[in-house]
Amino acid sequence: MFGEILKNVHQKTPLVHCITNYVTVNDVANMLIACGGSPIMADDEKDAVEITAICNALVINIGTLNERTISTMLKTGKRANDLQHPVVLDPVGAGASKLRTDTTFKLLEEVRFSVIRGNISEIKTVFRGSGITKGVDADASEAVTDKNLDETIALAKELSAKTGAVIAISGATDIVADANNAFIIRNGHPYMSKVSGTGCMLTAVIAAYCAANPDNHLKATAAAISAMGLCGELAYERLVKNDAGISSYRTYLIDAMSKLDEDTLKGGIKIESR
Amino acid sequence: MFGEILKNVHQKTPLVHCITNYVTVNDVANMLIACGGSPIMADDEKDAVEITAICNALVINIGTLNERTISTMLKTGKRANDLQHPVVLDPVGAGASKLRTDTTFKLLEEVRFSVIRGNISEIKTVFRGSGITKGVDADASEAVTDKNLDETIALAKELSAKTGAVIAISGATDIVADANNAFIIRNGHPYMSKVSGTGCMLTAVIAAYCAANPDNHLKATAAAISAMGLCGELAYERLVKNDAGISSYRTYLIDAMSKLDEDTLKGGIKIESR
Amino acid sequence: MFGEILKNVHQKTPLVHCITNYVTVNDVANMLIACGGSPIMADDEKDAVEITAICNALVINIGTLNERTISTMLKTGKRANDLQHPVVLDPVGAGASKLRTDTTFKLLEEVRFSVIRGNISEIKTVFRGSGITKGVDADASEAVTDKNLDETIALAKELSAKTGAVIAISGATDIVADANNAFIIRNGHPYMSKVSGTGCMLTAVIAAYCAANPDNHLKATAAAISAMGLCGELAYERLVKNDAGISSYRTYLIDAMSKLDEDTLKGGIKIESR
Repeated sequence: MFGEILKNVHQKTPLVHCITNYVTVNDVANMLIACGGSPIMADDEKDAVEITAICNALVINIGTLNERTISTMLKTGKRANDLQHPVVLDPVGAGASKLRTDTTFKLLEEVRFSVIRGNISEIKTVFRGSGITKGVDADASEAVTDKNLDETIALAKELSAKTGAVIAISGATDIVADANNAFIIRNGHPYMSKVSGTGCMLTAVIAAYCAANPDNHLKATAAAISAMGLCGELAYERLVKNDAGISSYRTYLIDAMSKLDEDTLKGGIKIESR
Repeated sequence: MFGEILKNVHQKTPLVHCITNYVTVNDVANMLIACGGSPIMADDEKDAVEITAICNALVINIGTLNERTISTMLKTGKRANDLQHPVVLDPVGAGASKLRTDTTFKLLEEVRFSVIRGNISEIKTVFRGSGITKGVDADASEAVTDKNLDETIALAKELSAKTGAVIAISGATDIVADANNAFIIRNGHPYMSKVSGTGCMLTAVIAAYCAANPDNHLKATAAAISAMGLCGELAYERLVKNDAGISSYRTYLIDAMSKLDEDTLKGGIKIESR
Repeated sequence: MFGEILKNVHQKTPLVHCITNYVTVNDVANMLIACGGSPIMADDEKDAVEITAICNALVINIGTLNERTISTMLKTGKRANDLQHPVVLDPVGAGASKLRTDTTFKLLEEVRFSVIRGNISEIKTVFRGSGITKGVDADASEAVTDKNLDETIALAKELSAKTGAVIAISGATDIVADANNAFIIRNGHPYMSKVSGTGCMLTAVIAAYCAANPDNHLKATAAAISAMGLCGELAYERLVKNDAGISSYRTYLIDAMSKLDEDTLKGGIKIESR
């Protein structure tokens, strides 16, 4: 099944419109190409509403947001909704400032999201309007562990029921859930948190996977997260071999995605459903 | 001749002012250094009009344009015209939205360009006011082939006569033309389209080459395109050797440009004139 | 002592808020992670004033400034002052345009800086209101040499007395001074100037080092500069070994910082005090 999902991405080359932060935007663009999609970035209202119409999916990432881009996010999100394109939200740093938290809620009110992906602190902020967000990283006290796994899955399902979106919680253990079903994914490597923007990149990959697999956003999201985690593992092997550091790791991560085929994904995936 | 052109770039270290998109701006900066130039970016009107005066060339790239930067492009372009600096236009995604198309025409009305570089869809948009632009990539149905080569060269020459600019059409086969003469360049590698921003980088390299070779923008542009294509070939050899992926390829491309010397360029160039 | 300073950074993982240019922002983010810190970027007034409160230091880098971000720099700088966070200024291109020079002086009037880091041309602009700034690089005629070293140290000390900030002058020989003491650092490699943004990255590393070593900003700044220079040397060794170019060098530089330990720093540092 996950092989099929990857095949669809490679065959359809979905065009993904990203309204995203300027910190990691280049890595997002290259990761989108690497995963089999094609990126386009536009954040001016007049440009973006029209650009999104020629695309197959929209990413809204609120890092480095400002008044101009917030307005664009709202209008473009609604346009993508009208066109029934998948829209994926990355609430970067929600909880860290009032503007980020308020913008997240405004977006949830006005735009229907197919998927919401964040770390546990960001997702808790989305859930209950407040989280312990230490900047753009999750707070250690909120980390998903085997102990609180069931509780976190329940939270994800409840939030999915409330928003209609697939909920993806990134961390050492990843959780993906809709209102009824959840996947637990154990791919990935701690080194992924040593590269700025792995979350942003993953969000864009999820959008490409959902665009190419419109009938099952839950499984498409799970496949995207597994693929990204597996690439993180492969990149780490190469890092060790080359005695390299974190900037090489970023390169290896994107490289791995550009070389990922169905057999590697099927062989490397560590997933269970609940 | 092309060796001489490269030598001039290396000797003069032209300072190139770029008003460019935030997606690929870092690669543009490093590629400019790699090719022998020096980059400076400024997009606030008050800053840019003055910055351009201390530079040797100006790049206007309309990716991720917005109202503020459009105004800066117009005023800075005119200032560069007054100072007789070469000004190079990259109409990224022209045809993909009304704002991008309108901005392109407004720029063509108010600024004199030395070179206009784009893919075939973008150049057709510039030519006839509409093209089939699939986001930031050319539409496959418009690709330049041996069959439509003569026709495309004629289009380039006509557009050059109309605008006064050297026209550079990037693709598997590259075409560079002024009103009377054309070059066909067969350097490059398909992998170049797997890296976000190779077009943006090339546009900046063209600006550096034109700044250092003011007497012949046609040949300077052809040399820049050949150099970039050749680096794409050398980068691919290194990719195969290292069993690497697309992010490494980006690194190899810039590396190759930083190591390109006259002999390598003269030995590797694949060009014919028409 | 410098080993201790590095240890503090690694143990405290200071969160550094950067208001910085969009050209080199991604390298700044990854370099911050590499050096042991954690980055967050926010430049909208409403967001940034609040974000800075959860951070441990603030970087203000005026490259690609605009009216919106200038206002944010001023308000956020004052907020960081209120909270007694170290604030580090990078006056990129001060002297190259009236807007950049004026903004630098406005910032110096309204915000107390812990450290000001720039090349000699930028620092001279800060000192006397005018410098010979060739874009974002120092003018060769102003380079710090053994001949003018004493004079330059005197200038740095005087500027420190005037501003209350530690003054860091980057170049082939680096100078760090407060009103009474100076360090001369001879680490580094000429290749560092071949990568866009090494200055921006260094400024962010200084902020992380100062945040983790609040009692001695002079020594923390000197340690940061030594660490960066040493990484430049290690990166060059790897470049030679791999016959690589400038884009690989950028990767190697960040890699080296991510692997730098106390013993390597203590063994490689080339510093003298005056």
